[in-house]
Amino acid sequence: MALETIYDTPRGKHVISIDQWRREAVETLFDQAQRVAWMYNEQNGMRPILLDWLRGKAMVDVFFEPSTRTSTSFAQGERFLGGIVENVTGVKFSSVSKGESLKDTVRAFNCYSDLLVMRHTKAGALAEAAEVSRTPVINAGDGTGEHPTQALLDGFTMKQRFGGLDGLHIGFVGDLVNGRTVHSLARLMSLFDDVKISYVAPDQLQMPKGLRSKLEAAGVEQSRYSRLGKKLLGDVDVLYVTRIQKERFEGKKAQNEYEKLKHYFVIDSKVMARAKDDMILMHPLPRVGEITEAVDDDKRASYFKQMRNGFFVRMALAAAVLERPFTVSAVRDEMRVQSGKMV
Amino acid sequence: MALETIYDTPRGKHVISIDQWRREAVETLFDQAQRVAWMYNEQNGMRPILLDWLRGKAMVDVFFEPSTRTSTSFAQGERFLGGIVENVTGVKFSSVSKGESLKDTVRAFNCYSDLLVMRHTKAGALAEAAEVSRTPVINAGDGTGEHPTQALLDGFTMKQRFGGLDGLHIGFVGDLVNGRTVHSLARLMSLFDDVKISYVAPDQLQMPKGLRSKLEAAGVEQSRYSRLGKKLLGDVDVLYVTRIQKERFEGKKAQNEYEKLKHYFVIDSKVMARAKDDMILMHPLPRVGEITEAVDDDKRASYFKQMRNGFFVRMALAAAVLERPFTVSAVRDEMRVQSGKMV
Amino acid sequence: MALETIYDTPRGKHVISIDQWRREAVETLFDQAQRVAWMYNEQNGMRPILLDWLRGKAMVDVFFEPSTRTSTSFAQGERFLGGIVENVTGVKFSSVSKGESLKDTVRAFNCYSDLLVMRHTKAGALAEAAEVSRTPVINAGDGTGEHPTQALLDGFTMKQRFGGLDGLHIGFVGDLVNGRTVHSLARLMSLFDDVKISYVAPDQLQMPKGLRSKLEAAGVEQSRYSRLGKKLLGDVDVLYVTRIQKERFEGKKAQNEYEKLKHYFVIDSKVMARAKDDMILMHPLPRVGEITEAVDDDKRASYFKQMRNGFFVRMALAAAVLERPFTVSAVRDEMRVQSGKMV
Repeated sequence: MALETIYDTPRGKHVISIDQWRREAVETLFDQAQRVAWMYNEQNGMRPILLDWLRGKAMVDVFFEPSTRTSTSFAQGERFLGGIVENVTGVKFSSVSKGESLKDTVRAFNCYSDLLVMRHTKAGALAEAAEVSRTPVINAGDGTGEHPTQALLDGFTMKQRFGGLDGLHIGFVGDLVNGRTVHSLARLMSLFDDVKISYVAPDQLQMPKGLRSKLEAAGVEQSRYSRLGKKLLGDVDVLYVTRIQKERFEGKKAQNEYEKLKHYFVIDSKVMARAKDDMILMHPLPRVGEITEAVDDDKRASYFKQMRNGFFVRMALAAAVLERPFTVSAVRDEMRVQSGKMV
Repeated sequence: MALETIYDTPRGKHVISIDQWRREAVETLFDQAQRVAWMYNEQNGMRPILLDWLRGKAMVDVFFEPSTRTSTSFAQGERFLGGIVENVTGVKFSSVSKGESLKDTVRAFNCYSDLLVMRHTKAGALAEAAEVSRTPVINAGDGTGEHPTQALLDGFTMKQRFGGLDGLHIGFVGDLVNGRTVHSLARLMSLFDDVKISYVAPDQLQMPKGLRSKLEAAGVEQSRYSRLGKKLLGDVDVLYVTRIQKERFEGKKAQNEYEKLKHYFVIDSKVMARAKDDMILMHPLPRVGEITEAVDDDKRASYFKQMRNGFFVRMALAAAVLERPFTVSAVRDEMRVQSGKMV
Repeated sequence: MALETIYDTPRGKHVISIDQWRREAVETLFDQAQRVAWMYNEQNGMRPILLDWLRGKAMVDVFFEPSTRTSTSFAQGERFLGGIVENVTGVKFSSVSKGESLKDTVRAFNCYSDLLVMRHTKAGALAEAAEVSRTPVINAGDGTGEHPTQALLDGFTMKQRFGGLDGLHIGFVGDLVNGRTVHSLARLMSLFDDVKISYVAPDQLQMPKGLRSKLEAAGVEQSRYSRLGKKLLGDVDVLYVTRIQKERFEGKKAQNEYEKLKHYFVIDSKVMARAKDDMILMHPLPRVGEITEAVDDDKRASYFKQMRNGFFVRMALAAAVLERPFTVSAVRDEMRVQSGKMV
């Protein structure tokens, strides 16, 4: 399937929502990410090629809401491909503090870049940005809306372990009402066949009804639980744990609520002992106690692998959006030219 | 005219004030900026050459007062030419908060760079910096003082539209007392022949007398208005609108004053209908309502073009200050060597 | 002596404390730094080689406590060697503010880098970071703990002036109890022969007893003074002045104490007149009055040279830690290959 078309939206090659994606596009991206990971590995000697893929392309990464790891992941990846990157974070927004509109901010950054990566505090802000942007825009998280690149790196991590996403049983644990990560990943899973999702959360943090209806229509089998029972634990292929987000609880009463809920589910070695041998434990990080450190050495713990994969998936995505044509054969051809040997 | 000499000041090749510039130097810079713009355009295939122009030159951009778009414009441009750039903004100034003098800060950054770009809150700070700096210094705005690179990009935008700056009639609208942008641009215009400037502002925001006298001595025809009348509107080649700067009104009384003045002049489609067909509408941005969004689609609206031109003008300036000898023939020679074809 | 081994610690090639270093390793690093300085000098035409030394290596510089000059020095140096650098400073720590542990932060940055440079507010934090890091870690200052790269650049500055560090008499002046710079440098000096150290400070800011005992065991001759007397001044080879650190005095009473002490020792031209002709005056900067500006023109004033040397020493260190094998002969070979001439 041609890379030229898969990310097309009515407004251009923007990556705003997982809903834009078809299964084939996701699989193509995963193949590309795997290739990037392989080329990044210094032992394979292909880093020099990677370093030139986006040579001379300018990027601006704008984070209205700071996020060290996501912004570092995007910016380092873009630089690694030879891009010219300005990483703008919260504190520098003098224009916005002077009262500038989001649209003007977008058009301003368009002047200095071929690609715009943006995180915003408001759901829907990225769609608004894409309306006026003259360059592709990638959503790096918009409030309680979506976080498509997180979903893609999560899916890629499952693909690496299980070979594919069909037939998987995912257990989501934690704050499912505010977690955009969970929302985006659930949407992504709905593109695949025979997927089963179990939601484990207290009532006030359960998965929103609207999204559940949507997933049901897409054929996803869904169940809700208020606690992480032995039977469920013994059945899931993926246990996806999220942080109860303190920053979403505003006011004193809400803070008390937060204190009660924050350790509602804690994954420790005892919990892991009841899970399947070939399952994986995921978390978008940062964690604040939901998974104990003792679990880190468990071979099923995959949260740092997720983060590393984010680096590769975002490189692959930036290259695809900028129409760098890296099909398998194109990469092979390059390798042959540069290294003088077959791969 | 030799590039080696035009930016020379008694202290070196610093760019502190528009008053340092002669007409010939401005025109040479405009030619260079046009060349940069052409080479930046990917369709012309010359980006790779541009990417090597300042390869291995180190730059530090220091913004004591944050300014997202100006700092991004400088830093991305410098990186695009192959420079090694540290972009230091307000929050990181640990040394200054420890009580360090401006002179020591300058000498510190001299250790890590071949070029220093600086914005400061205090008028005159850049001249002070240039006194001790062992590398060229470029003024990116010093308080209510000057903003020479903004004036140069503004002039370049006029040059693109009108072929030259002689004989133009500029109408300045808004806060003319605090706006360093207006001050620097008016100084620049005075280098050209038969220039006419009309100032449109309430009394308390009118152009300072000292600067007006200076321009008069240079042969500029000047008039003052308190409102933007039909006749004036129908005569100007350039309508240059500025924001009433909220941050210059301190205290409660001043804030009330600000609220009264901020929409004193609003340029909307009705206003534009009375302006000439071949005029241009300019604004240094950000805007906060002085120009309505409906005007953006008017072909005369040139404010985003200004911003884009800032990118090119600053690249051209950095290269010139660092004595990268890019005359027309030098660029042609490079192109021939690298691409094997005549241009 | 092989570069491959000298920085090895039980946990890997981390640079956490001066105590890890042996004299031979320090001398090898000084030789490398000298070579970097020579190659950086544009007149020698070797910058292009330097620019490729760490090409394709990714680095993250994390400053929990902001420090403009140290972070700029590291980041610019790493970029100059071709590295891909993310410079993370205080304000961006969204993950940490969400409650993330230091270990998780380290493992997160490991995902995007081949080298981690870190400054932390807490003594011992870097040793903790090194415990979990999968890449080398360089200590850029940990609270009141150590600042090994400052000691190395200080030592390198003495080496440039005196040819070596054996037999030198150093006078430390200022805050000797809180100054990690002084502590690290004193440890470094103890690796050399016949070193004499004189401490000049009020009682409450004198050198800690523990460290003095350690130095005594290493054979360093030490003396304490409460004022900078004529005889001492006439004998020291190096006068090393430090700032009384305001940020270490918390509370109103402590602040009063600070005001009394801050100008306890001020080095002016009169003081310098009593010092030896061939001594050097050093200061880690920033200064806030401890050395008057009039002294800057004295040929013995070496504080800006120290800063410049920091740039070179940190480049040499990053290259060494990442096992870039730049022995004298390797550099010569490269030069021959690239420039086609003998050096």
